[in-house]
Amino acid sequence: MSYDPDEHTSSSFTYISQMGVWWIVLVVAVLTQTASAAVREYHWEVEYKYWSPDCKEGAVMTVNGEFPGPTIKAFAGDTIVVNLTNKLTTEGLVIHWHGIRQFGSPWADGAAGVTQCAINPGETFTYNFTVEKPGTHFYHGHYGMQRSAGLYGSLIVDVAKGKSERLRYDGEFNLLLSDWWHEAIPSQELGLSSKPMRWIGEAQSILINGRGQFNCSLAAQFSNNTSLPMCTFKEGDQCAPQILHVEPNKTYRIRLSSTTALASLNLAVQGHKLVVVEADGNYITPFTTDDIDIYSGESYSVLLTTDQDPSQNYYISVGVRGRKPNTTQALTILNYVTAPASKLPSSPPPVTPRWDDFERSKNFSKKIFSAMGSPSPPKKYRKRLILLNTQNLIDGYTKWAINNVSLVTPATPYLGSVKYNLKLGFNRKSPPRSYRMDYDIMNPPPFPNTTTGNGIYVFPFNVTVDVIIQNANVLKGIVSEIHPWHLHGHDFWVLGYGDGKFKPGIDEKTYNLKNPPLRNTAILYPYGWTAIRFVTDNPGVWFFHCHIEPHLHMGMGVVFAEGLNRIGKVPDEALGCGLTKQFLMNRNRN
Amino acid sequence: MSYDPDEHTSSSFTYISQMGVWWIVLVVAVLTQTASAAVREYHWEVEYKYWSPDCKEGAVMTVNGEFPGPTIKAFAGDTIVVNLTNKLTTEGLVIHWHGIRQFGSPWADGAAGVTQCAINPGETFTYNFTVEKPGTHFYHGHYGMQRSAGLYGSLIVDVAKGKSERLRYDGEFNLLLSDWWHEAIPSQELGLSSKPMRWIGEAQSILINGRGQFNCSLAAQFSNNTSLPMCTFKEGDQCAPQILHVEPNKTYRIRLSSTTALASLNLAVQGHKLVVVEADGNYITPFTTDDIDIYSGESYSVLLTTDQDPSQNYYISVGVRGRKPNTTQALTILNYVTAPASKLPSSPPPVTPRWDDFERSKNFSKKIFSAMGSPSPPKKYRKRLILLNTQNLIDGYTKWAINNVSLVTPATPYLGSVKYNLKLGFNRKSPPRSYRMDYDIMNPPPFPNTTTGNGIYVFPFNVTVDVIIQNANVLKGIVSEIHPWHLHGHDFWVLGYGDGKFKPGIDEKTYNLKNPPLRNTAILYPYGWTAIRFVTDNPGVWFFHCHIEPHLHMGMGVVFAEGLNRIGKVPDEALGCGLTKQFLMNRNRN
Repeated sequence: MSYDPDEHTSSSFTYISQMGVWWIVLVVAVLTQTASAAVREYHWEVEYKYWSPDCKEGAVMTVNGEFPGPTIKAFAGDTIVVNLTNKLTTEGLVIHWHGIRQFGSPWADGAAGVTQCAINPGETFTYNFTVEKPGTHFYHGHYGMQRSAGLYGSLIVDVAKGKSERLRYDGEFNLLLSDWWHEAIPSQELGLSSKPMRWIGEAQSILINGRGQFNCSLAAQFSNNTSLPMCTFKEGDQCAPQILHVEPNKTYRIRLSSTTALASLNLAVQGHKLVVVEADGNYITPFTTDDIDIYSGESYSVLLTTDQDPSQNYYISVGVRGRKPNTTQALTILNYVTAPASKLPSSPPPVTPRWDDFERSKNFSKKIFSAMGSPSPPKKYRKRLILLNTQNLIDGYTKWAINNVSLVTPATPYLGSVKYNLKLGFNRKSPPRSYRMDYDIMNPPPFPNTTTGNGIYVFPFNVTVDVIIQNANVLKGIVSEIHPWHLHGHDFWVLGYGDGKFKPGIDEKTYNLKNPPLRNTAILYPYGWTAIRFVTDNPGVWFFHCHIEPHLHMGMGVVFAEGLNRIGKVPDEALGCGLTKQFLMNRNRN
Repeated sequence: MSYDPDEHTSSSFTYISQMGVWWIVLVVAVLTQTASAAVREYHWEVEYKYWSPDCKEGAVMTVNGEFPGPTIKAFAGDTIVVNLTNKLTTEGLVIHWHGIRQFGSPWADGAAGVTQCAINPGETFTYNFTVEKPGTHFYHGHYGMQRSAGLYGSLIVDVAKGKSERLRYDGEFNLLLSDWWHEAIPSQELGLSSKPMRWIGEAQSILINGRGQFNCSLAAQFSNNTSLPMCTFKEGDQCAPQILHVEPNKTYRIRLSSTTALASLNLAVQGHKLVVVEADGNYITPFTTDDIDIYSGESYSVLLTTDQDPSQNYYISVGVRGRKPNTTQALTILNYVTAPASKLPSSPPPVTPRWDDFERSKNFSKKIFSAMGSPSPPKKYRKRLILLNTQNLIDGYTKWAINNVSLVTPATPYLGSVKYNLKLGFNRKSPPRSYRMDYDIMNPPPFPNTTTGNGIYVFPFNVTVDVIIQNANVLKGIVSEIHPWHLHGHDFWVLGYGDGKFKPGIDEKTYNLKNPPLRNTAILYPYGWTAIRFVTDNPGVWFFHCHIEPHLHMGMGVVFAEGLNRIGKVPDEALGCGLTKQFLMNRNRN
C-alpha cells in the first residue's frame, strides 16, 4: 500500500488514535490485503484570501488556503470523503464534483437547491462518493457564482490499481483553465440581477492552473509597440506561470479542463502536435490536431511528443474563441530540460484561430468519436425533449429561458422534495417538453417577456431519453451565443449537431449511432441544434444547464429526475433548509 | 381604529380574504373594541441594489428596495410581526431589533449565532415580538458586517394609544445617522480577518437618513479654496439631503439614533438649543445643550424650538469625534417654511467640537440622569464582572479580546444549545470574570497573544449584576479607543464613569445610585472604566458587545445567559443550523 497522507488508511492514525491505534492498524492491514480500492479522506476549509491570480490582488475563494484548491488524485474504484468546512462569514457553500456520476450517492452531487442545502458558515458537511472509472475531472462551487470566485480544483482519476492504462505516456501534466475578473462576485451577481442588466464583460485574464498575467505578456518581445509590455512578476509570485519541464523524445499526457465562467478557449503548443485521446472522462478515437478548442465544463487529455529542437523552449497559448475576445492570450512555457528554463521561445506564440470561425469550431467537435469498444447508444429513444434556448425579459430584467421558462431553483432542494414527497417544494407541473414550431430562431424573440419557474422533467427509470438543445437569436441584434450544456449524474452520447432549427423526423437521420462520443458537456453552436441521448439509469435529481456561470445565474438550466422510488438514503445533513428542514424536524412526531 | 395598511387588522383582509371575509371582519371589529394594542405585520424582502448613498454608487442592502429600510411606527403594547424573506444569493441574514427587550421572545432578538440561525437564501423567517414601552429605536443586520452593508432602519414606538405623551411638541422628525464606506463589505471583512490586518480606515461619508455627500459640501460657499466644492446632486437624487421643514415658534421632537459602523458623532443645529429628553428609549431629566454627542448604538430625543429669525435657514451638522476624523461633516438644512427651502444659510455650519476633547465627551455623558419617577437601581449587586478590553494578536491576526478571550460565535446558536442542553454547542467553562489586577492599562499589552473562545457568563434569575468595562491601551502606540457597549435584552443603569483602572472597594463609592440613566448602550472612554447594573429578569441569552462593527467582527463581545430554565418555546424555525439542526431532526426518534 501507498503511504499517501491523503489516504484514509494512513490519516486514520491522526483522527482515531485515541480509540486504540493497534486495533485500527489491524483492521487497516486486513483491508489493505483484501481490497485495492482506497478511501481518500480530506479535511477542507473554504475561506476568502487575498490572492493575485493575474498579478493584481483581489479576494479569492480558497480551499485550505490554496488557489486553485488541492488536486484530488485517486484510482478508479476509490471512495472520496471530503469533510468540507465553511469558514466564510455569511455565505453558504457547496462543491460539485464535475464529471462524477454519483451512482448511489445523488445527495453528494453538490448542486445547491438541487441535491442539497448550502452548508452554513461554521458547519462541516461530508461528501462521500465513489469514483468508478478513470478520467480527468474537476470540482467547483455550485451556489450563486462561487465558481467564478475561484472555488475550483482538479479531480484526477487513474485506472484502478492493478489494471493497466491503455494510453502510453512517460509523464503527465494537469492544466486547469479558467477566466478571471477583477470585479468581485457579489458585485457581478448584482449587476446581472439588476434592471437594466449590467453585463460582466469579457474576463480580465485567462488563468492556467490559477495563474495569469494581466496587462502584460510573456511574449512581449514579439509585440509591436502598441502591444503589451513584458511581465514583471518574480519567480514564486502567485501569478508566475507554471512552466512544464519535459525531456526530449518522450510522450506526455496533458490533462486539460476548463472551468471558465464564460470564455470558450483554444489551446496550442508551439511546434507540437496534440493527439486527443480523452474527452470528459471517456476514451475517444485518437486524432491529431494543431490546437484544441475547450469549452467551460469540458475536459480532455492530449498526448504530446517532445520531438522538436531540444535546445529551444515553446509557448503554450490559450486564447479566447466564440465571443469577440477582449482578453489577452494566456501563456506558459514548454521547457525542454535540455534548454535553460528561462530561455524565451524564439518565435511568437501560436495565434488563436479566429474567434468567429464557427465552422472550424464545429468541425473540431465533429472529429470526436468514442474509442473502439465504448458502449453504443440504444437505437431508439423513449422520451424526447426539445429545449429552446432564448434570452428574454421578465419585468425588464434580462433572463435566459428554456422553452420560455427561466429557472429559479427553490429554497428546498429538489432531492429532498421528491424523497419526502413535499408537494410544495416546487411546481409539480412539468415545464414544456418542446416549443412552438413556428418560432423563428433567426430573429430576436417576438414576445420577449417570459416567466420564471421551478418545475422539473421527471423520467421513468431505465429509459432512453433524447434531448435536443436548440439555439436562437438573442434579445438584440443578430447574434446567437455559444452555450456549453453540462449534465450532472450522467455521461450522454452526443448524437449530432446541425444548423438552423431541428427538423423532427428528418434530422434524426443524420445522427451518429455508431460511435458517438460519451460526454457530460455538449456544445450548442450559434443558430444550431445539438442532440444528446442518455439512459435514466441513475436514481436522483440532476441539473442540466449552461455551464456559463452568468447564464446559469440568469436562469439557463433545467432539472431532470429519474428512478425516484429507487433513491436510497439521503443524509439528513444534506437537507436542513426550506421545507425539508420543517419536515425532518417533525417527521417522528405523533 | 386606524386604517394604517401596516396594521394587521387591515392587512388581514389581503391575506385571509379567501377564508371568509365576513367572519374576519366580525372578529377584527370585536378585537378593536376590546384592545387598543395592534398587531403590525410586515412583509420584507432583503436584497442588494445599486444605490448612491453619498452620490457615489455601490451595492447596498435594501429592505423592499428601500435604503434605509422602512420605518416601523408603533404604539407601546403593539405586537410587531415581520416576515423577513432572504432574497440574497448566497448570504444568510438576520435582523436585530435594537433596544427592544424581547421579554418572552428571546428567540426574536435577531443575533445570529446567539439567538437564532441565519435565515437561508430563499427562506422566510417570522419575527414576532411586543414593543412594551415608548422609545426611539432602530433595527439592523446582526450577521457578519451586514449592518455596515446598509441593512438598517428606524423603529419608533409612541406611547400607548389612549395614553398621553409626557413630552410636549408640535411635530417630530427622525434622523437615523450612519457612516458609509465605498469598499464592499465582504472585502472589508476579508481585510479585517487577514494577516496582517487591513483596517477599514475612516468612513467616506456620514449619512443622515441614508443620505450623504462625498467629496463636496452643502456649505462650500464658506470654504476656503483648498476645501470641498459645492455639491451637484439634483433634487430627488438618492444622495440629496432630506430638508427639515419647520414653522416658526413651534417645538419639534427630533429623534436621533446612530447605527454607525465606527464613527462617534456630534450633531448641532445652527443657532438653536437642543433640550435632551430621551436616551435609548428612556425619559431622562431634560437638559439644554448646543450640540449632542451620539455614539453607535445610542438613540436620543431632543426638543428644538424654532425661535430664530424665520426668514433664514439653518445648517444641521453631523461631524466625527472620538477618532481623528477623515470624513467630511454631514449637513442638511433646517428650513423655516417662511423662507425659501433653497435659500442657503447665511453663515457657516456649526463646527464639530475637537475630536480628542474627551473631557468634553465625558462631561456630556455625565449630564444624563434618569427622569423623575424612573425606577431606581437595586442598592447592591449580587454578581459582578470586570471586563478588560484589549487589542491582541492570535497567530499574527489582530483581534479584540475581553479578559483575554476573543469571541467567536459558534455555528449553533447559544439559545438552542441551552434550551436543548446540547453540551457540545459551546464551551461550558465560563470565561474569566475579571483580569489580573497587576495589568497595566496605560501600556500596550505585554503579552499580546490571546485565544479565541465561545464560553458565556451564566447568571441566576432575578439577581442584580454589575459589569465594569475597563479600557486599556491598544497594541501599538499610546492610544486607547472609544467603545460603545450595547446590551441586548435589557436596559441597564449607568452607575458611573472613571479614569484609569477601576479600584474595587473604592470606586463604587462614586456610583450614582439615585438617578442613573437607564440605557442599552454605554460608552467606554479611553483609559477609563464604566460601570453598569442590571437585573437578570429576562430569561434568554443576550449579546453584550462593542457596537463598532469591525470591533465585534474581531471578537469584541461577550454573551450573558439568565433564567435558563424559564425560557419558553423557541420556534424550530429559529434553530436549523449546527447541532440544533441535528437535535431537532432526531428529537422524536425512539
